[in-house]
Amino acid sequence: MRIYILTLFPEVFGPVLDSSIVGRAREAGILQVTTVNIRDFAHDAHGTVDDYPYGGGPGMVMKPEPLYEALAWVRRDSESEPYVALMTPQGRRFAAGVAKELACRDPLVLVAGHYEGFDERIRSFAHDEISIGDFVLTRGEIAAMAVLDATSRFLPGVLGDENSAEADSFSDGLLEGPQYTRPQEFLGMEVPAVLRGGDRAAIARWRRKESLRRTLERRKDLLRDAVLTYEDRRILAEVLKEERRDGNDLW
Amino acid sequence: MRIYILTLFPEVFGPVLDSSIVGRAREAGILQVTTVNIRDFAHDAHGTVDDYPYGGGPGMVMKPEPLYEALAWVRRDSESEPYVALMTPQGRRFAAGVAKELACRDPLVLVAGHYEGFDERIRSFAHDEISIGDFVLTRGEIAAMAVLDATSRFLPGVLGDENSAEADSFSDGLLEGPQYTRPQEFLGMEVPAVLRGGDRAAIARWRRKESLRRTLERRKDLLRDAVLTYEDRRILAEVLKEERRDGNDLW
Repeated sequence: MRIYILTLFPEVFGPVLDSSIVGRAREAGILQVTTVNIRDFAHDAHGTVDDYPYGGGPGMVMKPEPLYEALAWVRRDSESEPYVALMTPQGRRFAAGVAKELACRDPLVLVAGHYEGFDERIRSFAHDEISIGDFVLTRGEIAAMAVLDATSRFLPGVLGDENSAEADSFSDGLLEGPQYTRPQEFLGMEVPAVLRGGDRAAIARWRRKESLRRTLERRKDLLRDAVLTYEDRRILAEVLKEERRDGNDLW
Repeated sequence: MRIYILTLFPEVFGPVLDSSIVGRAREAGILQVTTVNIRDFAHDAHGTVDDYPYGGGPGMVMKPEPLYEALAWVRRDSESEPYVALMTPQGRRFAAGVAKELACRDPLVLVAGHYEGFDERIRSFAHDEISIGDFVLTRGEIAAMAVLDATSRFLPGVLGDENSAEADSFSDGLLEGPQYTRPQEFLGMEVPAVLRGGDRAAIARWRRKESLRRTLERRKDLLRDAVLTYEDRRILAEVLKEERRDGNDLW
């Protein structure tokens, strides 16, 4: 897969591109990432890419021309028509499902400009607008990094274990339950006995139960939308009993 | 304000700490950021900070001891008791309101470990768990960068214009409306006449109207929770009429 990142600060991506999941995916030839400096497409010697907003007010607004020309360069460079996604707090909410979808968009262009101020006409060049949450970042680069990392996880062969992304929080619509590693006891807190035993079925059931419990406690909204099997519902009934809740607020 | 970031990859933060909002806040002495390498608190010569999960399964889980000791170091280093927030997809959802709240927690500790796998006992060391969205990142560092950037915006004196963070998307519960800069015409698309005129009141009303329109189109959920004045409701009624909607789905 090929991802282009249009940015004013390509250097911010350096450490992220060279290590961890993205670094490994690039080394393995599964992912190619090209950072494009929008400033290279400015029209004047100063490299002007933003300007004051019409109508006044604080902050600078990103000009449409340099971005338009940077996108034209990407179109010439890529073999097929790229899918262009703006990083903006006004976009649709990024989530695991969106990451999975973007992992199929090849080539993908992430536009990381001033996160709070694109000239409105820039929206007409994009197929998609993506927000990583209801907060404002000074730099869209951080949003692009999140999209790049979370999306890379869904490329086949990128995670060490093929099943890992599917076992993550959200991939089945639930939060992951507790995990433990050594030591067996730390500050008086013990690893649950079931995880230390070798009963695979009991471990799987415990994990499912704790995943349902955590989702119930923290994100009832996810539980409402999750696809639950008959066995899941039996386990959830046990959890509700243990938590002394009737579950009437759930369905 | 003082922020400590506990991480396995301090180098990832380099470019983010030295430029843009965070760089300016540090230069102005408003913000001090200390990155702490969790690996420095490992117990063996290999710097082991993670281990296989009890009960089997893919991925590695972050061990509790090095993190516990890194936090003990932070406690000794800081003048007052720090507020410890884990970056995890199972945490409460980060948003502008949370950023505003965290900007008052001083010192603040952001723990950016393996985003998907903390030993459960690590949660007992933390006051807060924060998620930047319903997706999984390979590295919590990206979540910590988002929290760092969005939170810094709420520190007094950090943004050039004192009012800028308050005019952002979400600070009043609405999305920002369209913004424009030069040129006046680009690819046949014109800057709206009202923004080119000098009527401040008309500009303010147009902006409020387009902000309400955009929120209606894209994030009805925000509109339901926003605090609207009587004038806002009048403007919203105009928008609904223009969009040929009755608004019955709103309240």
